[in-house]
Amino acid sequence: MPYILDIDGVICRGSKPIVEGIKAVKLLIDRGEKFVFVSNNSTRSRRMLLERFRSFGLDVSEDKIVVATYATSIYLKKRYGKLKIFTTGEKGLIDELKLAGHEIVDYDDAECLVVASNRNLDYNLMTKALRCCMKADIYVATNPDKIFPGWDGPIPGTGMIIGALYWMTSRMPDAIVGKPSEIIMNEALSKLKCKNAVVVGDQIDVDVVAGKKIGCKTALVLTGVTTRDNLKKMIEKYGKPDYIADNLFQLVKNL
Amino acid sequence: MPYILDIDGVICRGSKPIVEGIKAVKLLIDRGEKFVFVSNNSTRSRRMLLERFRSFGLDVSEDKIVVATYATSIYLKKRYGKLKIFTTGEKGLIDELKLAGHEIVDYDDAECLVVASNRNLDYNLMTKALRCCMKADIYVATNPDKIFPGWDGPIPGTGMIIGALYWMTSRMPDAIVGKPSEIIMNEALSKLKCKNAVVVGDQIDVDVVAGKKIGCKTALVLTGVTTRDNLKKMIEKYGKPDYIADNLFQLVKNL
Repeated sequence: MPYILDIDGVICRGSKPIVEGIKAVKLLIDRGEKFVFVSNNSTRSRRMLLERFRSFGLDVSEDKIVVATYATSIYLKKRYGKLKIFTTGEKGLIDELKLAGHEIVDYDDAECLVVASNRNLDYNLMTKALRCCMKADIYVATNPDKIFPGWDGPIPGTGMIIGALYWMTSRMPDAIVGKPSEIIMNEALSKLKCKNAVVVGDQIDVDVVAGKKIGCKTALVLTGVTTRDNLKKMIEKYGKPDYIADNLFQLVKNL
Repeated sequence: MPYILDIDGVICRGSKPIVEGIKAVKLLIDRGEKFVFVSNNSTRSRRMLLERFRSFGLDVSEDKIVVATYATSIYLKKRYGKLKIFTTGEKGLIDELKLAGHEIVDYDDAECLVVASNRNLDYNLMTKALRCCMKADIYVATNPDKIFPGWDGPIPGTGMIIGALYWMTSRMPDAIVGKPSEIIMNEALSKLKCKNAVVVGDQIDVDVVAGKKIGCKTALVLTGVTTRDNLKKMIEKYGKPDYIADNLFQLVKNL
């Protein structure tokens, strides 16, 4: 059975590898099994993620990475063609948008606003995003994540900008590409060239919900956000995964 | 009859005086009439506004200024006593908070979060605000304004931060001090030492609504946000002011 694997909380935590996650991916490669990575990361390109994987001793090809920066670029291209885009995002997103053939412009020339997290966000950028949101024909966001776990506490995600713009303009994105949206999941299935897979992640409300939406089996691993303590609450609220494992190696070994 | 006068759009536009506004205030002074200024400005202290007034040739005393920075500082002091405060705001607000006896601390030591606009807002400040919002006992905002007219287009107001925090934490401020809240209006009445006044402003949804809330007569002047074009729509949505005048001098002359 092919796998759709989340990255953060499954393979690594930021730039630190999770040993069992890496071991599991190596096992999949040895077994010759099909897999792709699907991540809501909105600041890194596929190239940046491949570099990170290489630093973990993992050598995978670019077509195994479906990250929100790339998925958003491709989604826009397929649906609207090449666009003039203003984005709140960082270099990783800008690289992917350009690779897909889009043109990066200032807010007053844009046909499309792409909202994504930016660690250099400031008042000027929010002002441009506001004005673009009031005018642009198309408005999409890479991912809906409101808060991320930073090294010393919670940090704002792309959702903060979506919320700020909604509060000011009453406008929500026409599409949000990242999990639990079907947009990114269908892109993953099309990369796998199949209609079914096991969707693995560390968050029930994100990964498991996304997997169920596209009719796949789902698996939760406990190396990320979800712990034995908050597991029951999340299942009550969002539904039960088909499998629960301590880590990705445990899961892959037994499936 | 005493007056409660809005500043921006009535007396000036940013740092540029409105001639009829200045003339009207001088007429009120000549006539010996009571008045106070009430403004949702969240970045300037009373002292900063007095300096601006002096640059317009207007010499008024500090006790005639009820600005959101000051009203918030006084409201917190009266309701809770002196507090340890983390604020997203600028120097003008910090000055007023300190003058009221509060202590300015970092986000992890704060009993109270005070949200206000900041033209130097960045990702780091939003991260601190997020963490403070998740922990602090008390959370207030200086004013609810979502968007302001900047010199070259709309710019985000305090409301943007309220919206971003609400989106991330589901928490709204315990109180929002600025118009149309009664908090700032009652502070104005107490400065006037009376129970009635004519509330004058350039925005129906802000100034007129605030005036009606405290049972005062209300007057709209057309030197700011509201124009003959959008007047009807705003009246249908928020109610009718008792008086409408082209400018403050027209109003004061005829009342």
